[in-house]
Amino acid sequence: MDKYKQLKEEAYLANLEIPKQGLAIYTWGNVSAYDEKLGVFAIKPSGVSYDKLQVNDMVIVDLNGDKVEGKLNPSSDTQTHLELYKNFDSIGGICHTHSPYATAWAQAMKSIPLLGTTHADHLANPIICTKPLSKEQVENGYEKNTGILIYETFKNPTLGQEILNVGPYPKSPLIAKENPMVLVGGHGPFSWGKDAITSVYNARVLEEVAKMAMWVNNLNPNFNQLPQHIIKKHYERKHGKNAYYGQK
Amino acid sequence: MDKYKQLKEEAYLANLEIPKQGLAIYTWGNVSAYDEKLGVFAIKPSGVSYDKLQVNDMVIVDLNGDKVEGKLNPSSDTQTHLELYKNFDSIGGICHTHSPYATAWAQAMKSIPLLGTTHADHLANPIICTKPLSKEQVENGYEKNTGILIYETFKNPTLGQEILNVGPYPKSPLIAKENPMVLVGGHGPFSWGKDAITSVYNARVLEEVAKMAMWVNNLNPNFNQLPQHIIKKHYERKHGKNAYYGQK
Amino acid sequence: MDKYKQLKEEAYLANLEIPKQGLAIYTWGNVSAYDEKLGVFAIKPSGVSYDKLQVNDMVIVDLNGDKVEGKLNPSSDTQTHLELYKNFDSIGGICHTHSPYATAWAQAMKSIPLLGTTHADHLANPIICTKPLSKEQVENGYEKNTGILIYETFKNPTLGQEILNVGPYPKSPLIAKENPMVLVGGHGPFSWGKDAITSVYNARVLEEVAKMAMWVNNLNPNFNQLPQHIIKKHYERKHGKNAYYGQK
Amino acid sequence: MDKYKQLKEEAYLANLEIPKQGLAIYTWGNVSAYDEKLGVFAIKPSGVSYDKLQVNDMVIVDLNGDKVEGKLNPSSDTQTHLELYKNFDSIGGICHTHSPYATAWAQAMKSIPLLGTTHADHLANPIICTKPLSKEQVENGYEKNTGILIYETFKNPTLGQEILNVGPYPKSPLIAKENPMVLVGGHGPFSWGKDAITSVYNARVLEEVAKMAMWVNNLNPNFNQLPQHIIKKHYERKHGKNAYYGQK
Repeated sequence: MDKYKQLKEEAYLANLEIPKQGLAIYTWGNVSAYDEKLGVFAIKPSGVSYDKLQVNDMVIVDLNGDKVEGKLNPSSDTQTHLELYKNFDSIGGICHTHSPYATAWAQAMKSIPLLGTTHADHLANPIICTKPLSKEQVENGYEKNTGILIYETFKNPTLGQEILNVGPYPKSPLIAKENPMVLVGGHGPFSWGKDAITSVYNARVLEEVAKMAMWVNNLNPNFNQLPQHIIKKHYERKHGKNAYYGQK
Repeated sequence: MDKYKQLKEEAYLANLEIPKQGLAIYTWGNVSAYDEKLGVFAIKPSGVSYDKLQVNDMVIVDLNGDKVEGKLNPSSDTQTHLELYKNFDSIGGICHTHSPYATAWAQAMKSIPLLGTTHADHLANPIICTKPLSKEQVENGYEKNTGILIYETFKNPTLGQEILNVGPYPKSPLIAKENPMVLVGGHGPFSWGKDAITSVYNARVLEEVAKMAMWVNNLNPNFNQLPQHIIKKHYERKHGKNAYYGQK
Repeated sequence: MDKYKQLKEEAYLANLEIPKQGLAIYTWGNVSAYDEKLGVFAIKPSGVSYDKLQVNDMVIVDLNGDKVEGKLNPSSDTQTHLELYKNFDSIGGICHTHSPYATAWAQAMKSIPLLGTTHADHLANPIICTKPLSKEQVENGYEKNTGILIYETFKNPTLGQEILNVGPYPKSPLIAKENPMVLVGGHGPFSWGKDAITSVYNARVLEEVAKMAMWVNNLNPNFNQLPQHIIKKHYERKHGKNAYYGQK
Repeated sequence: MDKYKQLKEEAYLANLEIPKQGLAIYTWGNVSAYDEKLGVFAIKPSGVSYDKLQVNDMVIVDLNGDKVEGKLNPSSDTQTHLELYKNFDSIGGICHTHSPYATAWAQAMKSIPLLGTTHADHLANPIICTKPLSKEQVENGYEKNTGILIYETFKNPTLGQEILNVGPYPKSPLIAKENPMVLVGGHGPFSWGKDAITSVYNARVLEEVAKMAMWVNNLNPNFNQLPQHIIKKHYERKHGKNAYYGQK
């Protein structure tokens, strides 16, 4: 009996959702699924294309970063996933892609301003873009430091990139559970959620929001942030304590 | 025997048209179908994805906003649909999506100018974008006030957003039947029609017109509105009393 | 025995190619096939969607514009097709769509400059955009005058719109056979060819060239026309008397 | 027994990948597969559409440019492939397309700056765009001179076009094996790889990188090149001597 069977299946199905949602070509994305009780996560093997991927190709890694099960090498981004699981509360899945609109924002080194209810339905803050990693951060554990950079920037958002056209980033820390996505400057998007499939859902949300925001900038370079009372309303009708969106 | 069977089927099929036409991902859209004689409309349940939707999931709501039939919660936008059915004549279906080009215009807070015959084949005026809702409108019945904002802006279009590059909005009221689409500032598109499927058709028209108009702005920022005599000709050959487009 | 059978089949198959190539949604396009010997053309019926279209729905029209066979009304653009068959030599098919990039150029009232070999592989001149029709032209035979405007502009290209960023239009007449596409200002593209399916091919070429040229303008607003010696080479290796592209 | 059977099959399958990856419409692309031991390459026949292509339509050409086997004419770009096989080491496949984003860059006469890790995962330099061919180069062996222009520009990159927004091209020669793609000014992309299918993979990479870079330019016209230490890290973790991406 395989105690990781369910976790591998969850990771496997979520990885297949990446090409289905058009979030990456070839092998340019990976998802992991985390089991807090077992203290391990299942992650896509490195460089395997989605159409050849099998459930049992998933690699099981523990919180020391050691491989617990699996024949293949885990994703080269494994250390980034690990750091996020260790430092962010209540996360059960992480997704990384190179989806084109979100990646363009990351390469442009700009945080995505909050311009509409599509964005506010999912998070109540701009989508932060980190600074690019320094030479030292790259040379001494690049992937691990990518994870550290993300949560350091969440703790102190003023370390992040300017929000396009709207000004510097706010000073209060961001809560990972309520802000399930980030851009790494010069690289691309990472997203997360209560489980693996939700992390891919959030990757798709990010791509759609990134696309809309780019077009807004084309249509009206003098745009403003969505008024705060609308942000609050949309976020809370889906995620607040009196949320009334969806079914109970 | 189910007296709402046909209405639910109409609403169901029109909701399935949303993903088929690429107008929304996941659950980001809803359609309702209205029966004037029965005084009720059938609407998509809240937060149910299109691939899991069943005919009998449709929720029947009357003009007091009360649920008449159905196990699930109706769309969170139900009150907006209700206001439009109560205040706009001759409407048998309403569609709301977050289609990306139309939503970008709504987020840019600009009305879409009338630039070509593709637009004039469907309506003879710019596509109005409302102001965003005020704090008070949001806090005291947000969805109901979204509906009220739409028809108030139709009664007095100068309340709407400026038409990109063309100037302030015209002063005469807009007739809903002849102008079957609107943008809600900071939110996205609503459209309607003689029945539910036509409201989705108009959502698709709006998305295509929004896309073309954005590209015109890229190619020639000094564009002008289409000459009035061409607007009139194209609108009337399809919708005028001597219309000659299509089959009798 | 039906002497128009083959012509109707040619028109029918070419019409189906419009949605297959993504050139129009719903009923927003039409193709006709012309038989010079019979002196008639087969054209799509007005307002019928592609998925319901049948071979025998095609309408046969003669060069007086009279319906010779068919139960349905022909396309509302029939008079435009008729004028082009009467005035352009060696044309066996005509296609009209509202494909979005080409239509954006038509709405922007700009002719498409010749910027690359993709364009020069098909024609050796910019793609002309006509002026919009005048009030008188619209009120006294709109569709017929659309056809007249096209060939008058081909006879005297200086009547057309300025070529984006490159200057006024050249003075020598354009030969229809060698320049199988045009934009009607404020409306959209018409294309033609030796038969119906080639006219749809040219509509697809126009859409791709229009897309590329818009992006060039985004990347480098100071672009220049492709050097004349490359234009000549690419056009002639496919269409010149010593053409060596393709199979004999 | 057909000693070219395997080579033709490799070329055939790689050509089918072009439409599958959305890199060309109709016949607007071609791939060849090279066998160094046999001293020949298999290439797509000229002007044959992908849906009609058969394995045995592939044409075998030797390094003198002579046809060794095949009933059809080889691609009109055969001489370009030939020059690249003769002059670039370690290349087993070449792909040419008119994919729209890459072609837009080629028409804009700009080299693509290195803006993100998606690009650095595949090559550590900007993607060079050559100058357009001169009148003399066009008239005296156009396709052969296209190949010569590419490797001359690789030998001396300062002959290439300016890198958008980042400045003149670096002075050191480019190694073809490590820089498997190029833009020909005014024309479009060529790419190569260790075999035919890898050359198509690189064509797809180029299209994605070209798309992202265009959007970066839209979002932030003051963009900078990705820091050199991140370029180096990403390129070397996939291609360096201590590469750790993928499986062994």
